[in-house]
Amino acid sequence: MKIDLILTADDIKNDAKKELLKDKTVVVFDILRATSTIVTALANGCGEVVPFVTVEEAQSFSSGRQDVILGGERESILIPGFHLGNSPLEYIPERVEGKTVVITTTNGTKAIRGVAEDNGQVLIGSLLNSKAVARTIVELGKDVVMVCAGTRGKFSMEDTVAAGMVALELTEGTDGAGISFESDLAVAACRLGEFYRYDPLKALYDSLHGQKLAAMGLSEDLAWCARLNQFDIVPIYREGRIT
Amino acid sequence: MKIDLILTADDIKNDAKKELLKDKTVVVFDILRATSTIVTALANGCGEVVPFVTVEEAQSFSSGRQDVILGGERESILIPGFHLGNSPLEYIPERVEGKTVVITTTNGTKAIRGVAEDNGQVLIGSLLNSKAVARTIVELGKDVVMVCAGTRGKFSMEDTVAAGMVALELTEGTDGAGISFESDLAVAACRLGEFYRYDPLKALYDSLHGQKLAAMGLSEDLAWCARLNQFDIVPIYREGRIT
Repeated sequence: MKIDLILTADDIKNDAKKELLKDKTVVVFDILRATSTIVTALANGCGEVVPFVTVEEAQSFSSGRQDVILGGERESILIPGFHLGNSPLEYIPERVEGKTVVITTTNGTKAIRGVAEDNGQVLIGSLLNSKAVARTIVELGKDVVMVCAGTRGKFSMEDTVAAGMVALELTEGTDGAGISFESDLAVAACRLGEFYRYDPLKALYDSLHGQKLAAMGLSEDLAWCARLNQFDIVPIYREGRIT
Repeated sequence: MKIDLILTADDIKNDAKKELLKDKTVVVFDILRATSTIVTALANGCGEVVPFVTVEEAQSFSSGRQDVILGGERESILIPGFHLGNSPLEYIPERVEGKTVVITTTNGTKAIRGVAEDNGQVLIGSLLNSKAVARTIVELGKDVVMVCAGTRGKFSMEDTVAAGMVALELTEGTDGAGISFESDLAVAACRLGEFYRYDPLKALYDSLHGQKLAAMGLSEDLAWCARLNQFDIVPIYREGRIT
């Protein structure tokens, strides 16, 4: 199995990169905070998560539906009229159980839908479920491309480290047999995973986006998103829905 | 002092990135093998190194000159009619002392001249001289941008780790006081430097280009290029010459 990594979701606009995703297992990471929130919501019993790129789409889909929780952020802040922001800590069972969570975020939901356009199915990755993601990748048996959402088109430490943690699980879970890296980027992510494995929270504080969230008083979100293998689930996006 | 990093020299074609280099100390890394060879040649007593982008320019500059050693590679192989290839181990005192070394390589010399076009002066970085590079950066007192040459426009592990080793020296040499990272990329490079600090050779074997060179029988080059702080010199490119 070959492991590759794409540094920012913006790169997928490029045709050569699109080609990279073809017939592969694709995992998207936007761990501060979209994919961590999606994993948490589903682990806490919500029925499905429907990601949208724009606020308008999200509102129009939810209009008149009592079973919908509308969540997300712009500039890391709650969107006016929405029930919840983008903190995974808000998506507790009491609020989300049995509900449809509709979500729109600055980078994450765009990355998921962008990748899905080319690939159909997308796994949702985070530190919260790295081991489960690695296991699913092995079960699917195809080469894997990890896509880091990035922050506004730039490399983000936190997503790369989360992708690296999955790569590390893959190499160690199989004793590395049959695993190869398609690019130096994929190896580097794996080494960063190794570097931070006993203190993933440090990676979040090392990232500029993590520092920004901490400065906004969201340190508890960082602590939550850094919980390695908290959940044993792998949300999968297909045809507009994550289940 | 702020530390930033550019992932591949190709990125500098972009105007926004050019702007990044303005009024900064710029260091170029192409440690397998151009910048390691340049550092070695100068440490071994050559008078100056003149880097060219094309084979033709290098040949025309050297034509009829007895004091010139013509070196370089294409596809990691000696160029017909050239005295030396791109192995640092060839640039021994007996061959280079007092000579002008003219060099052209696939990525490195292009990166140096490309950066210099925008910035005038460029420091030549490698693992061989990381501590000396860090000291010079501190002496120059300006913000610093590390430019990784990359391999054919792609991220390269070895250059990123070498840049990270300099970043690590900067943070530790000053106890980190007054040092800040401008991007997650710069932090990631520093952490990779930390990861590989006691075994930099492992970084070279982790890189696809390093593996390719090893497969060509050039493992001794890798071992040489991985010698951390072998030399206490900092070659500087200005106006066509590295001294």
